[in-house]
Amino acid sequence: MNKVPVLEIFGPTVQGEGMTIGQKTMFIRTAGCDYQCSWCDSAFTWNGTEKQNINWMTAEEIWNTLYELGGDTFSHITISGGNPALLPSLGPVVDFLKEKGMTLALETQGSKWQSWLPLIDEVTLSPKPPSSGMDTDFTILENIIDHLKNHPKVCLKIVIFDEKDLAYAEIVHQRFPQLPLYLQVGNSWLEADDESLLQYLLKRYEWLIDQVMKSTVFKNVKVLPQLHAYVWGNKRGV
Amino acid sequence: MNKVPVLEIFGPTVQGEGMTIGQKTMFIRTAGCDYQCSWCDSAFTWNGTEKQNINWMTAEEIWNTLYELGGDTFSHITISGGNPALLPSLGPVVDFLKEKGMTLALETQGSKWQSWLPLIDEVTLSPKPPSSGMDTDFTILENIIDHLKNHPKVCLKIVIFDEKDLAYAEIVHQRFPQLPLYLQVGNSWLEADDESLLQYLLKRYEWLIDQVMKSTVFKNVKVLPQLHAYVWGNKRGV
Repeated sequence: MNKVPVLEIFGPTVQGEGMTIGQKTMFIRTAGCDYQCSWCDSAFTWNGTEKQNINWMTAEEIWNTLYELGGDTFSHITISGGNPALLPSLGPVVDFLKEKGMTLALETQGSKWQSWLPLIDEVTLSPKPPSSGMDTDFTILENIIDHLKNHPKVCLKIVIFDEKDLAYAEIVHQRFPQLPLYLQVGNSWLEADDESLLQYLLKRYEWLIDQVMKSTVFKNVKVLPQLHAYVWGNKRGV
Repeated sequence: MNKVPVLEIFGPTVQGEGMTIGQKTMFIRTAGCDYQCSWCDSAFTWNGTEKQNINWMTAEEIWNTLYELGGDTFSHITISGGNPALLPSLGPVVDFLKEKGMTLALETQGSKWQSWLPLIDEVTLSPKPPSSGMDTDFTILENIIDHLKNHPKVCLKIVIFDEKDLAYAEIVHQRFPQLPLYLQVGNSWLEADDESLLQYLLKRYEWLIDQVMKSTVFKNVKVLPQLHAYVWGNKRGV
């Protein structure tokens, strides 16, 4: 099967979070996930509610859609999900987009290896903290990190909702101190109006900053919000 | 003279902008600037209003103050100004802090070379656009960039207030395409209350995103706000 299940292609827009925050990029969002995080902000990728909207696309069809949307304005593409690392069929897509001269970023929770992962220019591994309700398989995560040990741009990103999540992030940071760590403000208020959400998220960002600033474990870390939620609330496709 | 004119030392806090946005860091702000940007948010470093607060400090005194504030919670220090690259006397400070195992970031407009610049881990060159009222000496800027050509972490950051600033940023980007470019929302509303400022800055960020997204010159760029202004308004020392 050389087709990829795609739920959204949009852009150009800015990446709102993590290692490439602010980057002008196009987004490809694949369907399907091996996790069901309690606070997932893209649950439509795995909970069946948009099954009828999944578009099985070839590499060339994906490129054509990207080009129709972005024309000659972009050179960076972000692949997100769901968990795109579930898909062996992304290999030909990665090859195709690299041949077009694109820089590729991808986010995955680090629960599955794919041979095409080293070809991604910017790999974000985002293991999920206790608040998600998911368990991290550290053997698999460690194996993936080991396979990527010569890759120049791999980082860890952990969403933080509470103190238990912070304790989890400390453990991950101490286990993989060689990887840049991004701590990200969690957003579980998916029904909020934009203004209330903004005030709530700023308060949560300030809380997270306060926690991290006093920590002697988190010395060299980055603490970031999701900028897109500041600008566009919970709106999709931006 | 082995002392450095210091106006502020504070932290740990997060870096609110640019290449290391979100980074947990300490700040050292030096006094003195060769520019007088119309919208400077740190004009007290050069306009004489805080001349009496300048503290001439040795490397060891600076380190002691940092350690009193941050104890064992930090490993990253940002040197800002004013224009810290005016100061040959920063050399011993850079050496001292590197010996302590610190990662160092520095921002300068790129109007002056110092032999210690290559020792800075993360160098942000921020030439000033037309709205500043300043002129860029491209010969000097190019010379600095050339001297740093083997440095792994140098970027350009340009504050954008209007379309003329964007046109300037295009020229800089086309002249130095090898350097990562950060376009930053300008904040000239230094008397605003926090809530009005936040709404204003978000609108300006959305405007900047819109402009950059349709550009075929700005393909591979990052567009960012000043996060600290979202969280703390125009407050100093955070």
